[in-house]
Amino acid sequence: MSNDLYRVCLIGSGNVATHIGRALHQSGCIISGVYSKNIQHAQALCSEIAGNVAVDNVSLLPEADFYIISVKDAVIGEVAKRLKSCKPDAFCIHTSGSIPLDVISKHFVQSAVVYPLQTISKNELMDFGNTPLFIEAANSDSLQRAVLLAKSLSTKIYFLDSAQRKRLHLAAVFANNFSNHCFAIAYDLLKHADIDPSCLQPIIQHTVDKLAYMSPTEAQTGPAVRWDTNVLDAHQNALDGNPDLQTLYKLMSKSIHAFHDKLRSE
Amino acid sequence: MSNDLYRVCLIGSGNVATHIGRALHQSGCIISGVYSKNIQHAQALCSEIAGNVAVDNVSLLPEADFYIISVKDAVIGEVAKRLKSCKPDAFCIHTSGSIPLDVISKHFVQSAVVYPLQTISKNELMDFGNTPLFIEAANSDSLQRAVLLAKSLSTKIYFLDSAQRKRLHLAAVFANNFSNHCFAIAYDLLKHADIDPSCLQPIIQHTVDKLAYMSPTEAQTGPAVRWDTNVLDAHQNALDGNPDLQTLYKLMSKSIHAFHDKLRSE
Repeated sequence: MSNDLYRVCLIGSGNVATHIGRALHQSGCIISGVYSKNIQHAQALCSEIAGNVAVDNVSLLPEADFYIISVKDAVIGEVAKRLKSCKPDAFCIHTSGSIPLDVISKHFVQSAVVYPLQTISKNELMDFGNTPLFIEAANSDSLQRAVLLAKSLSTKIYFLDSAQRKRLHLAAVFANNFSNHCFAIAYDLLKHADIDPSCLQPIIQHTVDKLAYMSPTEAQTGPAVRWDTNVLDAHQNALDGNPDLQTLYKLMSKSIHAFHDKLRSE
Repeated sequence: MSNDLYRVCLIGSGNVATHIGRALHQSGCIISGVYSKNIQHAQALCSEIAGNVAVDNVSLLPEADFYIISVKDAVIGEVAKRLKSCKPDAFCIHTSGSIPLDVISKHFVQSAVVYPLQTISKNELMDFGNTPLFIEAANSDSLQRAVLLAKSLSTKIYFLDSAQRKRLHLAAVFANNFSNHCFAIAYDLLKHADIDPSCLQPIIQHTVDKLAYMSPTEAQTGPAVRWDTNVLDAHQNALDGNPDLQTLYKLMSKSIHAFHDKLRSE
């Protein structure tokens, strides 16, 4: 089974399935089939990535080397069960950060998780080659095959078990969703003060650049680390029309200070 | 008064004074004098940036076109008062985001604020040319002169009054300190699960890259936007050894959801 002969069926047509499908197609894999419960979505994805068959019933999927399930977390188990009933010997992969391997490995001898850690929007070009992939497999043979597939997608391959992957997913919520929300709040504060929010971009970029050579705890600056009560009080007063943001400001400041207290005592 | 003839006295020798001093020196200004209450700090900065005189008493500063006060917020007023008593006609500038112009303009006819928006560590090379500078001046003549000075430091010049600058400083705490703290929490979660934190860098970089073409509110993804209670509950359970992080997780998730509810209703 050489790289350019991989035949892959995609189960799902959302953001993750779309980007994995594009990346597999570009790397020379054959997209044997695409399933979506909405046949039009399956057809659209098929036509974009030269998929052979679009279906709205898992049992109509053709033979393939890999069946990649990229559907909502809540229905992965149910889809796997349906796939099992028609393709009992399939190599089954799911792509979720939160769902354990055993949701599929209890149905399939050959199974693995390939979790891409990235925020994915459908209409965004994505550099999959730079996206970290986190792999877990049901056995060493599955692992070997999953790694071969993963290597055709990205150069950044990591190995995590289900518990670690859950922890990674939680950490990613802090690193991505919560940090992005801090940007959203900052932008909103500026918009209401008639200040161009894009003026924040250099400081945000610099904050991220620092991660390459300094831990974020070491890089922390601002009134909360110093516990500069003049500034902290002034900021909280400035937020007095918005009790939710005030609470958030207090909690974040306390959390920063506690982190640094801990650091100093270590 | 052409650019290369500016004579500048620096009042302060901390991070901001150091980086402004370096940038002014590089742009061809003459550093006439450096004040620090610790004479050794003044001497060290002087020798680095070819400053003429190091002093620990403001009254010993030589004549200059600009006197730039970069000391702790709490003592700016006091230092300005001392400067006034010996140099009543000085052009006085402070560089703080939180302190209003009138703290110095009540002492000096010619005065301005030049606030650089960046996290500055002393031992870090800094690209001042890319740092946004926010200017406010006591009158149009002061403004003109402050802009000339600022242009020798950076290409990104903005004009804000004291109230706007305070708001910007608050927004920067969210955009920089709080987002960085989210990174610190994420790194810490991974460290304790024996996962290399640097695997988060691509997702963090992508989050920041998106700001160039999408507002952070539009770019928001994750379980809180979708209000995916399965994942939200699982994450909170995973944090059950850490009630502070649990509270922060809940509050951030609620805040993200509220933002998007508001967006949908607009």
